[in-house]
Amino acid sequence: MLPLETNGSEDLMTDLFTYIDGHQDEFVQSLKEWIAIPSDSSDPLLRKELIKMVEITAERIQALGATVELIDMGQEQLNDGQSVPFPKAILAQLGNDPSKATICFYGHVDVQPAKMEDGWITDPYNMTERNENLYGRGATDNKGPVLAWINAVDTYKALNQEIPVNIKFIIEGVEETGSQGLEDLIKGNSSFFSDVDYIVISDNVRLSRKPALTYGTRGDAYFFVEVQSGTKDLHSGTFGGIIHESMRDLVYLLANLVDSSGHILIPGIYDDVSPLTEEERKLYDDIDFDLEEHQNNSGVNTFLYSTKEEILQHLWRYPCLSIHGIEGAFSGYGSKTVIPGKVIGKFSIRLVPDMKIPVVNKQVINHLKSVFAKLKSPNKLVVTLQIGALPWIANVNDLQYEAARNAIRKVTPEMIRDGSTIPLARIFQDLTKKSIMMLPIGGADDGEHSQNEKISRSNYIQGTKIFASFFLELAKLHKDLQMNNDPLTIKTSQQNGS
Amino acid sequence: MLPLETNGSEDLMTDLFTYIDGHQDEFVQSLKEWIAIPSDSSDPLLRKELIKMVEITAERIQALGATVELIDMGQEQLNDGQSVPFPKAILAQLGNDPSKATICFYGHVDVQPAKMEDGWITDPYNMTERNENLYGRGATDNKGPVLAWINAVDTYKALNQEIPVNIKFIIEGVEETGSQGLEDLIKGNSSFFSDVDYIVISDNVRLSRKPALTYGTRGDAYFFVEVQSGTKDLHSGTFGGIIHESMRDLVYLLANLVDSSGHILIPGIYDDVSPLTEEERKLYDDIDFDLEEHQNNSGVNTFLYSTKEEILQHLWRYPCLSIHGIEGAFSGYGSKTVIPGKVIGKFSIRLVPDMKIPVVNKQVINHLKSVFAKLKSPNKLVVTLQIGALPWIANVNDLQYEAARNAIRKVTPEMIRDGSTIPLARIFQDLTKKSIMMLPIGGADDGEHSQNEKISRSNYIQGTKIFASFFLELAKLHKDLQMNNDPLTIKTSQQNGS
Repeated sequence: MLPLETNGSEDLMTDLFTYIDGHQDEFVQSLKEWIAIPSDSSDPLLRKELIKMVEITAERIQALGATVELIDMGQEQLNDGQSVPFPKAILAQLGNDPSKATICFYGHVDVQPAKMEDGWITDPYNMTERNENLYGRGATDNKGPVLAWINAVDTYKALNQEIPVNIKFIIEGVEETGSQGLEDLIKGNSSFFSDVDYIVISDNVRLSRKPALTYGTRGDAYFFVEVQSGTKDLHSGTFGGIIHESMRDLVYLLANLVDSSGHILIPGIYDDVSPLTEEERKLYDDIDFDLEEHQNNSGVNTFLYSTKEEILQHLWRYPCLSIHGIEGAFSGYGSKTVIPGKVIGKFSIRLVPDMKIPVVNKQVINHLKSVFAKLKSPNKLVVTLQIGALPWIANVNDLQYEAARNAIRKVTPEMIRDGSTIPLARIFQDLTKKSIMMLPIGGADDGEHSQNEKISRSNYIQGTKIFASFFLELAKLHKDLQMNNDPLTIKTSQQNGS
Repeated sequence: MLPLETNGSEDLMTDLFTYIDGHQDEFVQSLKEWIAIPSDSSDPLLRKELIKMVEITAERIQALGATVELIDMGQEQLNDGQSVPFPKAILAQLGNDPSKATICFYGHVDVQPAKMEDGWITDPYNMTERNENLYGRGATDNKGPVLAWINAVDTYKALNQEIPVNIKFIIEGVEETGSQGLEDLIKGNSSFFSDVDYIVISDNVRLSRKPALTYGTRGDAYFFVEVQSGTKDLHSGTFGGIIHESMRDLVYLLANLVDSSGHILIPGIYDDVSPLTEEERKLYDDIDFDLEEHQNNSGVNTFLYSTKEEILQHLWRYPCLSIHGIEGAFSGYGSKTVIPGKVIGKFSIRLVPDMKIPVVNKQVINHLKSVFAKLKSPNKLVVTLQIGALPWIANVNDLQYEAARNAIRKVTPEMIRDGSTIPLARIFQDLTKKSIMMLPIGGADDGEHSQNEKISRSNYIQGTKIFASFFLELAKLHKDLQMNNDPLTIKTSQQNGS
């Protein structure tokens, strides 16, 4: 199964790349406009901005010539009893030639929170270019990659070239808060997915400077542990000494989640982790992974492990637990002598095959209740699972992996997994049974979810080129596959050379 | 030593009270205007507002006819290496008749932080009256009491009456962050204090519905414990599992400060606490303290202790430790999958006689270093004492206590101590050797430092009356004292009856 290389398609690729290089400032400007919208899905006060972001995305996709449908996702119930509308989801279709492969691109246009005072050097919502890097919230996660895909399609349109594949889009606005409702959306729109051949996600980053394809992600179980001592905050001078303080209980609970070697202290949590086979162990030997560079990117002096193999295994195939913060306590600059009345500790466990969310949920609740019981505290404890996303793993021999390897010319992509969570990969796999591929265009040092998130100008533009050539490569392999599988089919669709 | 009661002074008191009742809406309006200025001393971004607040206060005192001096307090060094100007301090004098007593009033016009999202029902900076309570940040701590004192003086002026005492003011703008620089200010202005007879502070609240005089306060040692794992925040998917997370270390440190019975775990911390004598123990029997009401005010179901005596002792004469919060971790609504790079835990220990700040500081640092050593963490630990304020205790037989007891007619004030900290009480006592009295006008349920801080309209107006009549009562007792001590002095100053 070799790619059907014709001079025509090689010429077209050159034209596409020339156009993309010539229009890069325009593509960068589009990204700047998208980043200017603070589409933070975790903040209900910014919900209007998020809804606006989804609308702008829908208009942009419609301008490609696609048929766009905006799907109502209902209301989000907030903890205080209020509710706000979820942003709509976008389902879109461009082309429906049955002889062509159909690729569905998944992306999201919501972002993580970002505030100057967290340590941003530039305004997170005013994209700023420094040293050929484009800094701004959402630059790499996930506005940059979504736009790169749109730019790639746009390039065919601008050159008056037929797009060699049918393209579908599924774009959502609540990925950063757990993609609520999307599973139902997929289930409820099975006809949309029935003619999809391949699903592509570009919502993670590479492992090194080398382009990569991702064939697995960890899942995530995000917990809130709430301790309430009373109905309001109190002055520590007026009440300190006689109160069962909620913060005292909470820090004790949080201190009993993970030890200083990174080992999770929740009984039974490792029981379902799939054992490391000799075959899998060998895979890690071949990965090109610059430990020193990774350490530099992290800004950390010492990792928990010292070898490449241990590091990759603990990022890809073992669970971990991170404590993210506390809501309700004093978090500002300076000093405040408050006894918080209600505090919510937030932590999450990255899940790996074959951990099960209901089992993990039960283990966490039982453990925290048992630790809390030792405190003999009269305070109220509530533990809730806020987000539950399963891990995902793909077959790296699927056709679209081969097409992507061809698209990334002259550079052999790494076959990697990813420690972070893209819930839809697993959901798509379970519900559609299609081949899923993650094709990251962002760099390992892009700082997704961190201060000073960025995407490099070159990765953004190179990513646009990879997507554009991926369409061609996939079309070729798909045609070969159809011819091999079904020699009687008369091929009417031709690549347009120019 | 009986008060010299004359019909003239009784008539004047009636006139003063009638005027105050008739102008209460005007007094309430003044408080609303002061609360509208967000003079939060902990937030460097609000420093201009704080400086404006001090200027407005200075103008208001000048309008009483006082000579006002604004004292430069230098620059505040921020943790990030920047600096902002401290607000100036106010020294003011109204009257210098050597035959009259001279009272110096201490107060502050800075406030604690306040944000709607902390759970305020009304805008903290837009004073709102509900059920005859005036809600707003600073209503009781300390703008209301400062204005009540000014209103009291103003009432004499409005009625064209001679004020029976000389009045001095010392007003500062950084009480909530530790009154930095004020000790030097007092030392550097000894001539201002040399002719002061009595110092009055009204910066705390009553214990019950009964008016009270406060003769002691706890001190406060406020610590920052900073743990840094790296130079920036990281994504818990991309880096979780290989990082020595700073939050893990911090929650373990914080969990080792105090046990669930309220006992502080820092070795040696109780060594200098003065033993409870039989004489002191008996004092608690007489205090009118409604445990149930105190519990209702607190919004808490269960206290650490069940008897009045234990509760009061643990609020007044034993130290306690409160964990206030964490800076640098995720503190917002919703979920964020961040591994914070640098986190600062904030806690404070209320100090009692005879604890010493350098000793406590050393004990805290040694304890945290020893706990941290057990973690064998490569992270960086820094422990700093941010605020160190000593406890204070007064002689309840001083003349001004008697005058205040007279001023609060028909209601016997409680002789109480206070669990919270007013650093200046102790500093004044040490540096000026004058008689210090705290005369609270706010109620136990006012919620200083909490959401929905308020002062009741009646306490604010009644407080103005108490201050106005206190001037008269003190003048009478002071005159008696002078006549008894120095029979040759010819009294030229008379109370003006009307």
